[in-house]
Amino acid sequence: MSLLLNCDLGESFGAWKMGLDDQVMPFIDQANVACGFHAGDPIVMKRTLLSAKRHNVVVGAHPSYPDLAGFGRRSMHLPAIEIIAIVQYQIAALAGMANNIDAPITYVKPHGALYNDMMANGHIRSAVMQAIAESHMPLAFMLQATPDAESHREEAKMFGLELMFEAFADRCYDDNGALLSRSKEGAVHSKEKMLAQVTQLKNDGSVTTISGHRLELQADSLCVHGDNIDGVNAIEEIRQIINL
Amino acid sequence: MSLLLNCDLGESFGAWKMGLDDQVMPFIDQANVACGFHAGDPIVMKRTLLSAKRHNVVVGAHPSYPDLAGFGRRSMHLPAIEIIAIVQYQIAALAGMANNIDAPITYVKPHGALYNDMMANGHIRSAVMQAIAESHMPLAFMLQATPDAESHREEAKMFGLELMFEAFADRCYDDNGALLSRSKEGAVHSKEKMLAQVTQLKNDGSVTTISGHRLELQADSLCVHGDNIDGVNAIEEIRQIINL
Amino acid sequence: MSLLLNCDLGESFGAWKMGLDDQVMPFIDQANVACGFHAGDPIVMKRTLLSAKRHNVVVGAHPSYPDLAGFGRRSMHLPAIEIIAIVQYQIAALAGMANNIDAPITYVKPHGALYNDMMANGHIRSAVMQAIAESHMPLAFMLQATPDAESHREEAKMFGLELMFEAFADRCYDDNGALLSRSKEGAVHSKEKMLAQVTQLKNDGSVTTISGHRLELQADSLCVHGDNIDGVNAIEEIRQIINL
Amino acid sequence: MSLLLNCDLGESFGAWKMGLDDQVMPFIDQANVACGFHAGDPIVMKRTLLSAKRHNVVVGAHPSYPDLAGFGRRSMHLPAIEIIAIVQYQIAALAGMANNIDAPITYVKPHGALYNDMMANGHIRSAVMQAIAESHMPLAFMLQATPDAESHREEAKMFGLELMFEAFADRCYDDNGALLSRSKEGAVHSKEKMLAQVTQLKNDGSVTTISGHRLELQADSLCVHGDNIDGVNAIEEIRQIINL
Repeated sequence: MSLLLNCDLGESFGAWKMGLDDQVMPFIDQANVACGFHAGDPIVMKRTLLSAKRHNVVVGAHPSYPDLAGFGRRSMHLPAIEIIAIVQYQIAALAGMANNIDAPITYVKPHGALYNDMMANGHIRSAVMQAIAESHMPLAFMLQATPDAESHREEAKMFGLELMFEAFADRCYDDNGALLSRSKEGAVHSKEKMLAQVTQLKNDGSVTTISGHRLELQADSLCVHGDNIDGVNAIEEIRQIINL
Repeated sequence: MSLLLNCDLGESFGAWKMGLDDQVMPFIDQANVACGFHAGDPIVMKRTLLSAKRHNVVVGAHPSYPDLAGFGRRSMHLPAIEIIAIVQYQIAALAGMANNIDAPITYVKPHGALYNDMMANGHIRSAVMQAIAESHMPLAFMLQATPDAESHREEAKMFGLELMFEAFADRCYDDNGALLSRSKEGAVHSKEKMLAQVTQLKNDGSVTTISGHRLELQADSLCVHGDNIDGVNAIEEIRQIINL
Repeated sequence: MSLLLNCDLGESFGAWKMGLDDQVMPFIDQANVACGFHAGDPIVMKRTLLSAKRHNVVVGAHPSYPDLAGFGRRSMHLPAIEIIAIVQYQIAALAGMANNIDAPITYVKPHGALYNDMMANGHIRSAVMQAIAESHMPLAFMLQATPDAESHREEAKMFGLELMFEAFADRCYDDNGALLSRSKEGAVHSKEKMLAQVTQLKNDGSVTTISGHRLELQADSLCVHGDNIDGVNAIEEIRQIINL
Repeated sequence: MSLLLNCDLGESFGAWKMGLDDQVMPFIDQANVACGFHAGDPIVMKRTLLSAKRHNVVVGAHPSYPDLAGFGRRSMHLPAIEIIAIVQYQIAALAGMANNIDAPITYVKPHGALYNDMMANGHIRSAVMQAIAESHMPLAFMLQATPDAESHREEAKMFGLELMFEAFADRCYDDNGALLSRSKEGAVHSKEKMLAQVTQLKNDGSVTTISGHRLELQADSLCVHGDNIDGVNAIEEIRQIINL
């Protein structure tokens, strides 16, 4: 089973820096690039696109609720028509800038609270799918690999959308295939456990849940984090496991 | 000489309405659509694009300095690299949404203070031209018709850009071809004088300046305003003159 | 029973106008003034404060979730610590500007989704109460008059807060004392029914619910709307009833 | 001659961190706290105020042009009426939150481009002075110590304002008393030269200009920077010189 590595990048804004983007780029396959609504101003976006192109990293749009102050991490009750419009605006902004440097984006992965809300709520997921499906260029839709993957595929078919499923390297799953809440013990893996989970996902297409059960999880991509130097080092080790 | 009519549209934002867009659309040829930086949220942009398509109105991007509170009317000292990035971001956002409904935009006309600054300052004009020239789709650049048109054409050639020149129906020109400052008497024409200026621009390619001189002005398009019902009525009369 | 009239004012922003503030001021007792988070820039705030002072209208802060694009009408999932901080920031901004013209504000009424959320959720109401209670100047807390008024008074006592209850002139109540959802028939009164409801609130301290029952409702103030000329005319008639 | 140390603090925003505020606080006398227009959200402001109080650091408002994306570093052409309103809004927001914890602010120092513009332009300086003078609580006005100090004092008298003059520890002055542009060689001092400049300011009330001349400079406060660990270490050494 082949696994790609994806990472949220381009999350600086103006004078504020975030993420070790330059150090992460050499080790990943897919960059989820912020589009200005939770992070990422136009200069940051342009630099991130150029850097991705230089490193042969595929770019996806990483749209968010409009919430700079909250970094897109707070749920906002938007009507479907507005979710569609803001997702399309953000996709268009990034996609156009990417086309300008002849490095078209290929997928969309929602950010933060919009991601969580759409995984939990079919109406929001439907709005996101419609936003992507109406795009003038074909774009895949990246969402979380869960035991509901099959029903998500059915939904996507109605929109003519291709899906990509992502799993998390550093997070522990519960028996239902959801991520264990960060407030619970064992929610975030030690480095050792994280590397073991990567190996298991790669070789067996599964994870071991918090209760010790084997959970099948068909993932196309692994989400990794480059916020700090420990994260970058972990990405490098994960890369080695993937390349084996 | 054939003259088009262009109008700034899509300048509502959230709960705040501005402009009689629906009443203006039937009478104009070109809609300069706000891209979210001085006005125009994603829902407003989408509605304006759909309305323009329905009325066979050609759409251009109307990018601005990032200044919602000031409606893009205040000069901001941005470095060239940022002017390029913000103009490209705004073009991309609108162009992508327009492509989604299969009604591609065809030109770019900067808004407010960015427009004034670029007419007065070659460095800023150069940044705007570069932003447009780097676009992955061919876009014309709309700027003010002045006695400097020839040198502006020379500049544009270096960027491989097509130009469109616009004149103003309701504003009085000074002998240098600049608009008379709004603070001066006679700066804004009465309706009678406005219609006379339209006729002269159409038939003679010229305007009569504040001092009574004839000033040649080769314009491709006339800028009209649909803020209120008087403006809409004036547009209708201008349309009749143009159609004669 | 004495009833005051309160109205949301100062909801313009930059180039965008909203509300007939100048026409409303002569008829109301209390102006709920936007503080910049859903509407109201510093110039608008200053003008509104001066106008209120001229008309002897008491001013209250009208804080909101930080959501210009949504006019503060969408629920946002903020942690209590942030609700407290943003409410205090907005109160302080308006209160300081009011003190500068020697017309201190006297109360706080949350806006839009924050108002609705705090009426429905005790944790959010508690955060708002704490924000007001920590203020260095005594401020009353205005909320909706409901059958839960007594328990709201108990809550407020814990924070040492004085309450003011408001009722709505133009909205129909259900038997539980909640406003009938706007999506339901009969939710918004005709002018005739509105004036009758005002009379009943004034003379009997009650409303007639959608099912025809009498519901006691102790209100200190009536919320009225000055968005358009019909609203202003209605306010004038309500004023006459109150003054009888 | 007694010198205070002032530092710009509270310049984080949402998820983005900036400045080593906690490490700087023990060594300074005055914290210039961002008010939300270039940096500093309400939570950051509250934390910074509490930290300043804990360390017995006096707080001043640090208002800016409304420009989060540019960190308030770009000149914006605002009319005087708007400069007055935005400065008053920001002062009020911080001052009110400071009063809530019983630690009133005592002065105002404009930030970034607003600071530079007001030093260069008497009309802008006049607007800032009026904004401060109209405040309901007495606030000093901190500006740059230059050879024009006497005329600035005359201006301030017309507004009834107390002035505080600040000098820069790490910047080289030209013979006119202006800071050498950062683009010029020698504009930013080495640590050794910086400490020498502090000593000279303290003992002799003067600096040595880029051309080697002695320039008298009466400063009440020294501006220091805590952006990184080198800056914090420098502040500690400056503190020792000041305390001698």
